[in-house]
Amino acid sequence: MIKPILAVTMGDPAGIGPEISLKALTHKKVYENAVPIIIGDAASLEKTKKILALDGFVLSPVASPNQAKGGYGQIEYIDLGLLKPDSWKLGEVSKEAGEAAFRYVETGIQLALKGEVDAVVTAPINKEAIQLAGHHFPGHTEIFSHYCGINDYAMILVSGNLRVIHVTTHMSMRNVCDAITYERVLAAIRLAKQAADSMGAKGAIAVAGFNPHSSENGLFGDEEERAIIPAIAAARREGIEAEGPIPADTVFVKALAGKYAVVVAMYHDQGHIPVKLAGFHVDEKTGRFTDVGGINCTVGLPIIRTSVDHGTAFDIAGLGIANEQSMLDAIEMAAMMARKNACKNVRKNACKKVKEPCRNS
Amino acid sequence: MIKPILAVTMGDPAGIGPEISLKALTHKKVYENAVPIIIGDAASLEKTKKILALDGFVLSPVASPNQAKGGYGQIEYIDLGLLKPDSWKLGEVSKEAGEAAFRYVETGIQLALKGEVDAVVTAPINKEAIQLAGHHFPGHTEIFSHYCGINDYAMILVSGNLRVIHVTTHMSMRNVCDAITYERVLAAIRLAKQAADSMGAKGAIAVAGFNPHSSENGLFGDEEERAIIPAIAAARREGIEAEGPIPADTVFVKALAGKYAVVVAMYHDQGHIPVKLAGFHVDEKTGRFTDVGGINCTVGLPIIRTSVDHGTAFDIAGLGIANEQSMLDAIEMAAMMARKNACKNVRKNACKKVKEPCRNS
Repeated sequence: MIKPILAVTMGDPAGIGPEISLKALTHKKVYENAVPIIIGDAASLEKTKKILALDGFVLSPVASPNQAKGGYGQIEYIDLGLLKPDSWKLGEVSKEAGEAAFRYVETGIQLALKGEVDAVVTAPINKEAIQLAGHHFPGHTEIFSHYCGINDYAMILVSGNLRVIHVTTHMSMRNVCDAITYERVLAAIRLAKQAADSMGAKGAIAVAGFNPHSSENGLFGDEEERAIIPAIAAARREGIEAEGPIPADTVFVKALAGKYAVVVAMYHDQGHIPVKLAGFHVDEKTGRFTDVGGINCTVGLPIIRTSVDHGTAFDIAGLGIANEQSMLDAIEMAAMMARKNACKNVRKNACKKVKEPCRNS
Repeated sequence: MIKPILAVTMGDPAGIGPEISLKALTHKKVYENAVPIIIGDAASLEKTKKILALDGFVLSPVASPNQAKGGYGQIEYIDLGLLKPDSWKLGEVSKEAGEAAFRYVETGIQLALKGEVDAVVTAPINKEAIQLAGHHFPGHTEIFSHYCGINDYAMILVSGNLRVIHVTTHMSMRNVCDAITYERVLAAIRLAKQAADSMGAKGAIAVAGFNPHSSENGLFGDEEERAIIPAIAAARREGIEAEGPIPADTVFVKALAGKYAVVVAMYHDQGHIPVKLAGFHVDEKTGRFTDVGGINCTVGLPIIRTSVDHGTAFDIAGLGIANEQSMLDAIEMAAMMARKNACKNVRKNACKKVKEPCRNS
């Protein structure tokens, strides 16, 4: 069986990224499907390992992905050596932690573009810290698109039957109003179709409305008439089974029941609210998340990228109580896509690269 | 026991309103807590009764609420006589049906303001039909606020533990950006507190952010800094336990788990998506809603008003398959509020009126 090599970027060292990365790699089934390598820093990983008391596991630095052995019990990582033991504080936004988190992602992307890893799985970064370090990207997705030189991309969130792609992501709601264009909506529908095929998801592509009640035939706003309806019509002419605009307050219920392959959401919260509601669970007594099942995937890139669907959770960093379920799901999805669907999902020139680094076992 | 008199406005005759109104009044428990009277039209109600084959029930017109007897088996209604048997078609938007639907609501409000009924429970209207009939209101809530002469009002959606109040409702997203003001947010927090008290809901008032990640300290949009954060601070100075801004994609999960009394949502879909996801159920085979549990309540008015939390469903009008659960919940909530919480929830001058019409039995 071919085991894809996965770069797991450990995220902001001040958050829960290092914790969920290490915890995920204590699960044996991860090693049955993939060879995971953390991209991070020894100082942070050693500290986290101590907090978690992972005595049965060994942290093994490797110089490059092709040196990874992928044996269970040895948590392999590439040490970028950016942090010293006292150069960052758990739970605090800092330039140092932001700079390091950014470099892990940059390294992961470069390794994937060079074909040295098959996919990148990202732990959460803190966007404020990234900005403090001088990297003016609003989020992971935009960093990936920049380094891959791609404009037509989108993130897709997955939680059970619910698969959601976004027309816009990290921008103010005021800017979203201008960004809902015919071209962007059509591009998102096409990417939704591509994602549905690569994930084997069945049903039509559902396109959500932007305004309340999808504007009720123009009563509240013109984005439906101006951009969304023409984009759906164009997609249908291309042979894509697209439906909508469907009012946002009902489309996700139907999608969760399995009616649609993918829902095209117009903005960040429109898609994130239902996905998180479907995938998160909270302990009623403590109010803390006990289970975080959703994942996040960027489609349209020449490389495979999946991610956890939650933030850095600075408030619980270092407490050892972060749940690694989303990271496990993101790793499993990346491995599945790299193994089975890589050729459908990525550009042809990258596809060859994707096939090469996979490790036979 | 005092039984409040409830005006049930039957909604657009072309939709499922008449069906769910009649179906709800076939449940015996409704009559244990209230005296319900439908405000509608004989032509529509008789037709619907035939479709539903409600042979064991008698439709009894009454001239005014004080003539209602409230006996189970007699479905009492006030006939406005606006429709003829062939003046509207099921499933079609029309001026005639819109005009009639508007008059039912107007009549219900007037009866409540005069103190002849204790509360108004509304079945869905079609806003396009209302506009065709020359009534330029975007929704029920605005009709109520207009006739009550109230500006500080809000609708609150309820589904299980999730109670959500909106800063804005039926307006384009572009207008929402301008409508998120310090004054509006503070008013919504105060109404949320009022609603929490009247419903006996425990926990803090959670205030959702407007932009993705609550703008991440100003990275995406300024509504948090300009309006939401100052409004929360002002509410706290008034002694209201308000928290936020909490990113919209996590606040509803925590609220559903019982962490907050009420969530203040910034716009229609932000609040409706989670409430409907929590309250709706869909048959996986047919894709149709099988159960619609949420309700809708307007707070800040001098009268009590609750409503179903779904639309006219023109696509299934006349098929006899509409689910009356939301209408039952709306009736129960109206009866509860009228009986127990009326004096806390409504203005003092209205409170006296509310007490009078209740029927002793």
